[in-house]
Amino acid sequence: MEQRYLEIDEWKIIEEGWDSNNHMKSESIFSIGNGRMGQRANFEEAYSGDTLQGSYIAGVYYPDKTKVGWWKNGYPEYFAKVLNSVNWIGIDIEIAEQSLDLAQVKVSNFRRELDMQHGLLSRSFSAEFADGKKVKVETQRFLSLVKDEVGAISYSITPLNFDGKVIIKPYLDFDVENHDANWEEKFWAPVDEKVAAQKGTVTAKTKKLDFHVSAAMRFEVFAQGEHVTLYPETEQREKYVANSVELQMEQGKTYTICKYAGITSSMNYAVEKLSTTADERASQAMRTGYDKLLEEHKAAWLEKWSTSDIVIEGDAAAQQAIRFNIFHLFQTFTGVDPRLNIGPKGFTGEKYGGSTYWDTEAYCLPFYLSTTQQEVSRNLLIYRYKHLGKAIENAQKLGFKNGAALYPMVTMNGEECHNEWEITFEEIHRNGAIAYAIFNYVRHTLDRDYLADYGFEVLLGISRFWAQRVNWSEAKGKYVMLGVTGPNEYENNVNNNYYTNKMASWTMSYTLTVVDYLKENHADRYAELVKKTNFDEKAEMEEWADIISNLHIPIDEERQVLLQQDGFLDKDLRSADSLDASERPINQHWSWDRILRSCFIKQADVLQGLYFFEHQYDKATIRRNFDFYEPMTVHESSLSPCVHVILASRIGYGEKAYELYLRTARLDLDDYNREVHEGLHITSMAGTWMSVVQGFGGMKIIKEKLHFEPLLPENWDSLNFTLRWREAVLNVSIDKKNLTVENTSESTAEFVFGPHTNQLKGGKKIVLPLAP
Amino acid sequence: MEQRYLEIDEWKIIEEGWDSNNHMKSESIFSIGNGRMGQRANFEEAYSGDTLQGSYIAGVYYPDKTKVGWWKNGYPEYFAKVLNSVNWIGIDIEIAEQSLDLAQVKVSNFRRELDMQHGLLSRSFSAEFADGKKVKVETQRFLSLVKDEVGAISYSITPLNFDGKVIIKPYLDFDVENHDANWEEKFWAPVDEKVAAQKGTVTAKTKKLDFHVSAAMRFEVFAQGEHVTLYPETEQREKYVANSVELQMEQGKTYTICKYAGITSSMNYAVEKLSTTADERASQAMRTGYDKLLEEHKAAWLEKWSTSDIVIEGDAAAQQAIRFNIFHLFQTFTGVDPRLNIGPKGFTGEKYGGSTYWDTEAYCLPFYLSTTQQEVSRNLLIYRYKHLGKAIENAQKLGFKNGAALYPMVTMNGEECHNEWEITFEEIHRNGAIAYAIFNYVRHTLDRDYLADYGFEVLLGISRFWAQRVNWSEAKGKYVMLGVTGPNEYENNVNNNYYTNKMASWTMSYTLTVVDYLKENHADRYAELVKKTNFDEKAEMEEWADIISNLHIPIDEERQVLLQQDGFLDKDLRSADSLDASERPINQHWSWDRILRSCFIKQADVLQGLYFFEHQYDKATIRRNFDFYEPMTVHESSLSPCVHVILASRIGYGEKAYELYLRTARLDLDDYNREVHEGLHITSMAGTWMSVVQGFGGMKIIKEKLHFEPLLPENWDSLNFTLRWREAVLNVSIDKKNLTVENTSESTAEFVFGPHTNQLKGGKKIVLPLAP
Repeated sequence: MEQRYLEIDEWKIIEEGWDSNNHMKSESIFSIGNGRMGQRANFEEAYSGDTLQGSYIAGVYYPDKTKVGWWKNGYPEYFAKVLNSVNWIGIDIEIAEQSLDLAQVKVSNFRRELDMQHGLLSRSFSAEFADGKKVKVETQRFLSLVKDEVGAISYSITPLNFDGKVIIKPYLDFDVENHDANWEEKFWAPVDEKVAAQKGTVTAKTKKLDFHVSAAMRFEVFAQGEHVTLYPETEQREKYVANSVELQMEQGKTYTICKYAGITSSMNYAVEKLSTTADERASQAMRTGYDKLLEEHKAAWLEKWSTSDIVIEGDAAAQQAIRFNIFHLFQTFTGVDPRLNIGPKGFTGEKYGGSTYWDTEAYCLPFYLSTTQQEVSRNLLIYRYKHLGKAIENAQKLGFKNGAALYPMVTMNGEECHNEWEITFEEIHRNGAIAYAIFNYVRHTLDRDYLADYGFEVLLGISRFWAQRVNWSEAKGKYVMLGVTGPNEYENNVNNNYYTNKMASWTMSYTLTVVDYLKENHADRYAELVKKTNFDEKAEMEEWADIISNLHIPIDEERQVLLQQDGFLDKDLRSADSLDASERPINQHWSWDRILRSCFIKQADVLQGLYFFEHQYDKATIRRNFDFYEPMTVHESSLSPCVHVILASRIGYGEKAYELYLRTARLDLDDYNREVHEGLHITSMAGTWMSVVQGFGGMKIIKEKLHFEPLLPENWDSLNFTLRWREAVLNVSIDKKNLTVENTSESTAEFVFGPHTNQLKGGKKIVLPLAP
Repeated sequence: MEQRYLEIDEWKIIEEGWDSNNHMKSESIFSIGNGRMGQRANFEEAYSGDTLQGSYIAGVYYPDKTKVGWWKNGYPEYFAKVLNSVNWIGIDIEIAEQSLDLAQVKVSNFRRELDMQHGLLSRSFSAEFADGKKVKVETQRFLSLVKDEVGAISYSITPLNFDGKVIIKPYLDFDVENHDANWEEKFWAPVDEKVAAQKGTVTAKTKKLDFHVSAAMRFEVFAQGEHVTLYPETEQREKYVANSVELQMEQGKTYTICKYAGITSSMNYAVEKLSTTADERASQAMRTGYDKLLEEHKAAWLEKWSTSDIVIEGDAAAQQAIRFNIFHLFQTFTGVDPRLNIGPKGFTGEKYGGSTYWDTEAYCLPFYLSTTQQEVSRNLLIYRYKHLGKAIENAQKLGFKNGAALYPMVTMNGEECHNEWEITFEEIHRNGAIAYAIFNYVRHTLDRDYLADYGFEVLLGISRFWAQRVNWSEAKGKYVMLGVTGPNEYENNVNNNYYTNKMASWTMSYTLTVVDYLKENHADRYAELVKKTNFDEKAEMEEWADIISNLHIPIDEERQVLLQQDGFLDKDLRSADSLDASERPINQHWSWDRILRSCFIKQADVLQGLYFFEHQYDKATIRRNFDFYEPMTVHESSLSPCVHVILASRIGYGEKAYELYLRTARLDLDDYNREVHEGLHITSMAGTWMSVVQGFGGMKIIKEKLHFEPLLPENWDSLNFTLRWREAVLNVSIDKKNLTVENTSESTAEFVFGPHTNQLKGGKKIVLPLAP
């Protein structure tokens, strides 16, 4: 863990004092976003020190030509990269021919603050130039949660010891590049620039795929709160427009520029309307005015928090961290657009390129299911529904037939982007997570119509894939699934990974029940679907039933644990404690073959299955498997600890659960892995939420009923979280003595605690003593 | 198979008629080499059509920065590339301001011929220019087998229908590039150019590693055989020197330029002497004269053939092919320098970069053992001895200790060049081939001193590797070897590959016997070695013995066949015949995961073990395993069929053996895989030799005795081959009736045929009837 340089505060992230070494980390941590776009906490003014300029627009990507050492048949041609886009925040400041640049001036009283409650980034500092001139600067900015194509900046300058000329130059710059480009090329080609007094637009398009993006700016200047009439000079070059405003400033007075940006993309508008629409957004924003824009933005954030906040008493660092996580998840994905998804780094960095991994279904969906309207989660599911055709094509490319679907490991538009055979072709359990997400959504929402409208087709494609992916082993007299990589990527190309086999047989089995449900409840739609998908009901269902009954599930008879894969017991079984500190993390110190043949587990694998199917296993089974696998798990993925926290909580291993929770709780805030400068671990933030709510809070769904089985960490006084549960909103408090559930909505809710099912009417609260 | 465009001839490769589509193939096929350098059959004069200019100097390579998609810990930083080097053959011809360029003139009577008996490339054609002028051209060239830094060219022009000015411009050009460069950079930096009348030198160095190479040229011109006094103009630029000679030619007279090149490298000379030495070589060659140089070169080739020729009666295509293979093997490696080795494409192309694979030990060594002096094979072994230190470092990098050695999969200087984890880290059986080569060498030559001088250290390093690479499986109560790739690269990361486990236990067991031998016969040297290697005799030998006795060897009890790996029987076991023609080769039509989980075998794996250890298995075992594995083998490696041919011959499957033999016999001459333009398959040529001599000829060594167990293909009248066997040279003939062995040397030889051991004195011949 790096030295902690940020203040602990319940609702804010605060950086006090200027240290350029922390800047790139802060650029990630203080990122803002509104689901439609995101912006790293780069400075508005010029900065010649180390920086990762980053402005991202959801869904706009670039197919970067694949880089590979040894090509394998079936590899994709490109890797979809999250695309660094127009710099809309830029405001150059020049004082007596000196550029304001924090790498060049003497900085004092630097403070950067991210107000998570209201979604507002602010910064203040004093700067002393070489010639002794001093200014005070105060800035604020946000990306409107209400008008999601608008960003607004308030940038104030106060000369502290001089009167004189100050040049303020707001600009838009599209001459940006991705640091992670495979072949060091720029991805944007210029289309058009327009500039006039107090406004400008710039449009560019991606060199492949023809995404067009327009950015427009408007701005106004105030002196001590009074509008200033401006006579700006305009500037224009390829991919760049600017206005240059000369102000005669007086010592002690404050001059504020409010810059409004409108950003539009060809995902939402015809190319010919892009630039004018962007300008409309910016000019509407200016007409509305900074304060009013900010007000409605703040209100929208408070609304989000009202159904999602978590309060931890007795641990301020944990309190800050969990809000940080919730905040960034909402900044990344708001659920209004089913073409969008959740990239591992959200809008905070470039790494990992393509945006969607199975993280979405396995880790993020539970968060959105519990904290947002049903529609948000439904859009996450529809995202995959829209990609079904590509998933079928992908499976065809790998030799599968008859509508079998294999969803990609990493994707933007439904096509596979990854190119390591052991992952791309073999980490097929991702398909299972997509099927499970449908089940999870339906048991949460009871929106069974979803199955008829969309769900069945996806389940069918995936079940068909599993049915073709297994083969009959004469030797075992069982179906087997050869050559897979499970969630534990520290084993590759193994046979009969329990988790994958379980996901396969469960998917087929769930699809069977869905067929029965559709036949009974949606007969017409079902008939349509059968036709559309060429579903050979009898033959296919019989085949699935046969596979379900005869699929090999590896078990250690002696220990009575599920086996990660057929060969697992041949390994040298050791506890991770036996590793020397100098060898960890093993992925940085061991060669790959050594990792592969070791027993060490990167992230929950068998335990991931027990988490998903907790309702099918008793606690003794969970405990036996946890006791066997946890000691061998090295948790070298940020996604790893959460599942262990939840299971440990379930079997009463409170201390272990808390120890594991600490590994991710402040992963980014405390930069455990020294990689925060590259961006935040957005999807693992959802894992931390799961740890708190499903682990310590003990929230779970069994047979479509909500359960609580809490286990409060020793050093927390209390835990309080808010949940949406179907029509209701529940505020749940756990302290040392009681579980208190308050229904803050008008709808009745039901939940199970211990042996009892509780009905809780709207506006009511119930206090239940925890078992001793 | 491509349409055959080459003539069948016993000793020659002949191309009649000009078709530019065949040129790049011919450039490979007609390549010349002398072990020290090699040259593709590029034209001397300018050629603007498709060509792969290729001139290679043994041992001079370039560490090209590794290209990889997903870096794995332990990958090497670079891939050593065989380096395209100075173009020394160039002679530009200009007639009335028209360049002689076969892509621009009308060509008739084109003939290209490679005389394999004498190592001579020649070419003749007539060219008609746009202005109607016609010339006849006749060229010859060779790389001297006697003076291995010298190349010589005779280039004759006869004006057919005009008198006039012809400009002849011999040059040296170092501005060359590798087509397979990872990052499209040129590898050579200029050092120095010198030019004067009738001579020139150019020196360049590699941008990394500082290899320096100098080329010098001298030339003389004859008119109708009479020396012409020349007044050339000189030309010089970076990496290039030339002489321009203007000749007034008369119709019907023949003008010949003899160009002599000397090429030296910093592997053999101090950099400051490089250029002068090269010039000395060239000027000595000119003093000697073309005809005399050629004469001694031819004699050297005849000498090589005297102990290695194979005569096949009744099959002219097979006759040509086997000589083609022997010829290219000798062109690639002559065995005079233990720093050199045999690249998969020799000096005929660039692909596969680094020069040494396990091909050398497994396929090439048997050829050189049987056809050349002992020293040649010994040098191949010493090559690996010299790399032992790097092999130990390589193993350390992967976590091994105490002098364990892992030889690289691909190398130039002993360092690993390959970067695919499943090969680099897991295809460790290569280590076994290097140990086996020592055993093979000793049983051939009885040079047991080699064990004391070099062999033991290598065996110790490899045995130590195996001992650390296995682990104890509690579940099996056996040692196991997890996570390997066997010779069949269509399975990756498997457990207990029979071949690898067998090689491991055999290596340890052989090392134990070598220790005993050394203790008894080389006590002092042994004591020295124990000290040098920190050999803990008792503990290490006990550990090996324990592993040998308890190493898991997978067997199918029911079928009584050895298993390729633990999970093999879980596969869908099908015959390759069941594949549709459109799916083959599967490596071009199937995705990698599908190949991996299929039962299809790229090349001999279990059968490779049965070939190496034929003396340990009875014929029934060989037959059972052959019957099981051959039908699943797709032979998608040029190295595959030979082992199957040998085993099929041994178990009396004559038809099968011949069918398999046909797959490689004319692989390059008939361009089966449409890739000959990239270079020839040099190492698999040794496999074809093995097929003929060890397969049909039935030559084998059991307990240090020479055996013959021939099985002549039905459509061959007879097979005759010459072998060195220790001090003797044996000429072996097999026809439909008899095995005839003639001892053409002065030393007595012994061989076993059927139940009888035959003593054959020098100069004697014995005729033994084949069993009915």
